[in-house]
Amino acid sequence: MANQISVGIVGGTGYTGVELLRILSRHPLVIVKYLTSRSEAGKSVSEIFPSLRGVCDLAFCDMTGETMAMMARDCDVVFFATPHGVAMAHTPALVAQGVKVIDLGADFRLQSLDEFEQWYGMAHTCPDILKDSVYGLTEVTRAKVATAKVIANPGCYPTTAILGLKPIIDTENRQQQALVDGRIIIDAKSGISGAGRQGKLAISYAETADNFSAYGVAGHRHSPEITQGVQAVLGADFDHRIRFVPHLVPMIRGMFSTIHVPLSHAGEQVDWQAAFESVYADEYFIDVLPKGVLPDTRSVKASNKLRIAIHQQADMLTVLVVQDNLVKGAAGQAVQNMNVMFGFDETIGLTLVPITP
Amino acid sequence: MANQISVGIVGGTGYTGVELLRILSRHPLVIVKYLTSRSEAGKSVSEIFPSLRGVCDLAFCDMTGETMAMMARDCDVVFFATPHGVAMAHTPALVAQGVKVIDLGADFRLQSLDEFEQWYGMAHTCPDILKDSVYGLTEVTRAKVATAKVIANPGCYPTTAILGLKPIIDTENRQQQALVDGRIIIDAKSGISGAGRQGKLAISYAETADNFSAYGVAGHRHSPEITQGVQAVLGADFDHRIRFVPHLVPMIRGMFSTIHVPLSHAGEQVDWQAAFESVYADEYFIDVLPKGVLPDTRSVKASNKLRIAIHQQADMLTVLVVQDNLVKGAAGQAVQNMNVMFGFDETIGLTLVPITP
Amino acid sequence: MANQISVGIVGGTGYTGVELLRILSRHPLVIVKYLTSRSEAGKSVSEIFPSLRGVCDLAFCDMTGETMAMMARDCDVVFFATPHGVAMAHTPALVAQGVKVIDLGADFRLQSLDEFEQWYGMAHTCPDILKDSVYGLTEVTRAKVATAKVIANPGCYPTTAILGLKPIIDTENRQQQALVDGRIIIDAKSGISGAGRQGKLAISYAETADNFSAYGVAGHRHSPEITQGVQAVLGADFDHRIRFVPHLVPMIRGMFSTIHVPLSHAGEQVDWQAAFESVYADEYFIDVLPKGVLPDTRSVKASNKLRIAIHQQADMLTVLVVQDNLVKGAAGQAVQNMNVMFGFDETIGLTLVPITP
Amino acid sequence: MANQISVGIVGGTGYTGVELLRILSRHPLVIVKYLTSRSEAGKSVSEIFPSLRGVCDLAFCDMTGETMAMMARDCDVVFFATPHGVAMAHTPALVAQGVKVIDLGADFRLQSLDEFEQWYGMAHTCPDILKDSVYGLTEVTRAKVATAKVIANPGCYPTTAILGLKPIIDTENRQQQALVDGRIIIDAKSGISGAGRQGKLAISYAETADNFSAYGVAGHRHSPEITQGVQAVLGADFDHRIRFVPHLVPMIRGMFSTIHVPLSHAGEQVDWQAAFESVYADEYFIDVLPKGVLPDTRSVKASNKLRIAIHQQADMLTVLVVQDNLVKGAAGQAVQNMNVMFGFDETIGLTLVPITP
Repeated sequence: MANQISVGIVGGTGYTGVELLRILSRHPLVIVKYLTSRSEAGKSVSEIFPSLRGVCDLAFCDMTGETMAMMARDCDVVFFATPHGVAMAHTPALVAQGVKVIDLGADFRLQSLDEFEQWYGMAHTCPDILKDSVYGLTEVTRAKVATAKVIANPGCYPTTAILGLKPIIDTENRQQQALVDGRIIIDAKSGISGAGRQGKLAISYAETADNFSAYGVAGHRHSPEITQGVQAVLGADFDHRIRFVPHLVPMIRGMFSTIHVPLSHAGEQVDWQAAFESVYADEYFIDVLPKGVLPDTRSVKASNKLRIAIHQQADMLTVLVVQDNLVKGAAGQAVQNMNVMFGFDETIGLTLVPITP
Repeated sequence: MANQISVGIVGGTGYTGVELLRILSRHPLVIVKYLTSRSEAGKSVSEIFPSLRGVCDLAFCDMTGETMAMMARDCDVVFFATPHGVAMAHTPALVAQGVKVIDLGADFRLQSLDEFEQWYGMAHTCPDILKDSVYGLTEVTRAKVATAKVIANPGCYPTTAILGLKPIIDTENRQQQALVDGRIIIDAKSGISGAGRQGKLAISYAETADNFSAYGVAGHRHSPEITQGVQAVLGADFDHRIRFVPHLVPMIRGMFSTIHVPLSHAGEQVDWQAAFESVYADEYFIDVLPKGVLPDTRSVKASNKLRIAIHQQADMLTVLVVQDNLVKGAAGQAVQNMNVMFGFDETIGLTLVPITP
Repeated sequence: MANQISVGIVGGTGYTGVELLRILSRHPLVIVKYLTSRSEAGKSVSEIFPSLRGVCDLAFCDMTGETMAMMARDCDVVFFATPHGVAMAHTPALVAQGVKVIDLGADFRLQSLDEFEQWYGMAHTCPDILKDSVYGLTEVTRAKVATAKVIANPGCYPTTAILGLKPIIDTENRQQQALVDGRIIIDAKSGISGAGRQGKLAISYAETADNFSAYGVAGHRHSPEITQGVQAVLGADFDHRIRFVPHLVPMIRGMFSTIHVPLSHAGEQVDWQAAFESVYADEYFIDVLPKGVLPDTRSVKASNKLRIAIHQQADMLTVLVVQDNLVKGAAGQAVQNMNVMFGFDETIGLTLVPITP
Repeated sequence: MANQISVGIVGGTGYTGVELLRILSRHPLVIVKYLTSRSEAGKSVSEIFPSLRGVCDLAFCDMTGETMAMMARDCDVVFFATPHGVAMAHTPALVAQGVKVIDLGADFRLQSLDEFEQWYGMAHTCPDILKDSVYGLTEVTRAKVATAKVIANPGCYPTTAILGLKPIIDTENRQQQALVDGRIIIDAKSGISGAGRQGKLAISYAETADNFSAYGVAGHRHSPEITQGVQAVLGADFDHRIRFVPHLVPMIRGMFSTIHVPLSHAGEQVDWQAAFESVYADEYFIDVLPKGVLPDTRSVKASNKLRIAIHQQADMLTVLVVQDNLVKGAAGQAVQNMNVMFGFDETIGLTLVPITP
């Protein structure tokens, strides 16, 4: 079509990469031009992902200077679905030529250079671009996303945490924080695709099936991102302690965050169901469930929906948040950001109906 | 839209029903008008299937005479996603008023009244309509589907069996049968959604997970349908014995049929890869994999694709067929038939990309 | 053997029943004499559970007055693996004849008659026996178990909760409670076998596999049992609020409780690793993992072990507890209690090695 | 105990290794003395396998010459749970010092040097020992096992194939082969633990869960072993073609072989149920199911049982065989062989009750 934009994807062999392809290959305003992979360069997409036979005819190209130059020349936006370190190496050159960047990795998620280095083990190489980049949690930062050159696509856990807490600690109502009394616990559970597409004993079938485990209990990279998200994105003076403990669920896709919020006496008086419904009334991708309904992860499987349930029991508010970690938690949110950046209808290409069963 | 057709679905609470809804709710030429359910009448669709919140606003209505009358008046086509016996009770009235019927159940699959009674335990109540109905295996009977009033949507196993055997025993080439020497074995495996959406101990999680079993070894309702399909649909004089043994796989969706075909000396000389590719060259939904590539069920998950691989080892031809039992094996094929019946592009609403992982 | 005791099992067709059979059939000091089932009376055990072919030759008998009389005459102990209401109907007659009773159901778990009626919807029919019954969490109430006539075998969740909290709020050290500051969150996860052996849509494979959900968020029967356990069993003046939220994991067996304990400043100074190791140093079935090691449910699969890990992060103590819900959470603990009641070595018949993978 | 034998295990970090440990640690006549691992040398067993905490206190030692010398000096028998090539490198030295060897790998399975080289890509290094070694399918070669110095523990698939065919083509009744008419199809299905304990993309959770696939269709190492087993072990003049196609099932443990046997007219007259029951009447580990009962893999989970069902439909005999691939298909059978070699009761340490659910 005349108004189609041209897209490049760096790192197309991971699960977020193939999910981007699944979505973008049916997006009417997008044409995927380039697809890179260090390990699979030269092979066709459908050789690696038979699910895309007949859907995508591209071949993976290596991430050389030449590829970069072609992408800088031909693409309107480049997605990075890569381990940390890759996006920040290439973003300056792309931005310099007017190409927008959406990083599904972690390079632009933490604004603190110290925290980035501490959690990712490398110094940030383009702090200026980092400063101008936008944390692309669309429902929270939509206006900034619209004009951003570089988007930090949020981590999957932080997406559930920040959206699950937004109606409680919204920055526009500073008194809300007094409604919370004590530490907030985010007890989160993720499907195994969140660990990426790789050959590792710890995520092999026989090790993980029929099994449930915790990980990152001593510290997880999404912890500082959650705190930053709550503080910088939602409210700068938020000072409630947040304890985040992630777990691994024997399922492919899906993320479930159980957020335990201790309420003050004032907090107990609030109609939280109404508060959540009101905050998200106009959001297509966020669904506040009716009172008493409990969510499960399959209700959003393979879609960009995020569903929230709120249950209050005396002085404890329990917020239950579900999403597909690969869609709203990664590729879908990235496309949602792209839609906003290019002035498209935010839902184009994302009206995917969840798969049941 | 002006050219949209109106659709009714009888039996919307099973897995084929919700899959029909997932597909039809995004079909640009369809509007779903009525949805019935005996057990859930009065409830909204999204109450039973939270995955459809915001996608489908209908409520289930009971299958009364009044409902029937409304459907007969307002619908262009009615899908039956019901246990056997229901469709044949209502089809005559619908057909009489010019409404087309697509039965995803078994009422019109077996042309022999005796076999129907033997396998389904009831006499057929509208043999005349049965005689005029068309077995809707689109790739085999497309021309008849186009003008049919009543479609028998094939069973999931027979779909894989007949399409997997078609290039070997095609009726248009009577000599082909001499290429086979001995009994054909169809060793088939199905995901558990094939057993339907119901509360039964035998399909509860703790009974079926981490477990593999055979069933229907002494006889399965799809056996006569496979034989009829091969004989009547592909070639009337086909007389090779077919042994069909189904198994239950601990997975939600997916069907895998391993078809073992003993070859005669003449059969050993055939280039079967080329033969299959040639037969299915123009079929959008059928994908003959390149030589040496093995299929898996997830490569078609949630899509209407059916993939086939052929491997020959000396005098044995092994045909491997995969599909999503709820899509190409049920709801997707039904919509494919609908598209043909109404002169739509056969792929409209069915360009679903398989979900990976 | 001369010193073997005779055992009856009421309700042998559930998962706790078959697990009792698995354990007791290899217990050298036990002979299982009777096995009842309303639904399967007359059938052999191995017909219902092929896994027990060649292991157990008994047939299920109906729970008639005659059966009761035989059990009262011939058994030393009767296990009830039944829905609530059954055990309390039969226990008085058994106790009257000197037969010990171990109830794996809920009839004797709550000492408060009001709470029992509130949560189980029926009045208690033998409050006197209830008063004398012992809550059989062996590691907490061992001395009382030794002389008990009637044992309330703990619920699976309470077992993890009470044992996970015991070193923190032990009754013998009243000052310990001041170490906790705020609400205790028990975010618990269970395999699906915990829902019992039954045909119910909600626990069918296609509904629960590849899916994670919460349930009982508004209130769960194990909540009052946990509170009672902590207060009455561990310390009468414990007054910290406990919020319990259970979840369903797509796995067959296994239970994982993540206990979030907010610490006071004094609590932060404690060496919790040492405290837990000390409390459980002599317990064969309780394994405090080395510092930094995280548990998973498969490390206890099919065994009577319960493993605990403790991780402290500033002012939050995270206690992770795993067990097999059908063993330490049900049948294994029941046999452990039986061993204590009859003066056997506590580990006899229970030295089962967990299955890996 | 005085009569305990001393055991060494080479390659203790795979799934067959840990399963050997699970079984042998509870075997009253065995003491495990040494355990080797190249990758984990120096670590304790329980560090790698938390399931063995408190069960096995050994540390892994490296497979050096020194280790070898100690094993040769101190052990009565050494198990190799290693990739091919390892056992044949060390067996001559062990045998020379009178130590018996049981190889759970493939080094001594194929008697043909050419076939070994063809399928395993290396020349055999001790053909003399190979010639004297015994294929340890206990129920078929028990007498030879009793006096063997070196045992080739059968592959998992061949165990099901050979035991499933034995009653049909038993060497002692040469006429039996005439009962079969045509090609025998072995359509086999294995749980994923059969692929070993390793980090490989192809067996990662997200790649294999909710998915079913075929593999080795063009040729599998167990094919020649099955043919050899049937010919050399069961009957030298057996000349029916056998086609073996393995599949991968999304489950941890379990193997299911569906054996399709075309019968001659004479074969149709046989009472196969009686024939199978008669052949296996005295075998503790082999269970011929009653007529009409269908097996599932969980009925043998974690046990050394192998169950067989026979269903005849006109001229096709369907033999269904289930086992736990890690027990009867590997470690359990190895211990069974060990029991026979040392004159122990064959069932000692192997009366494991299958886990249900």
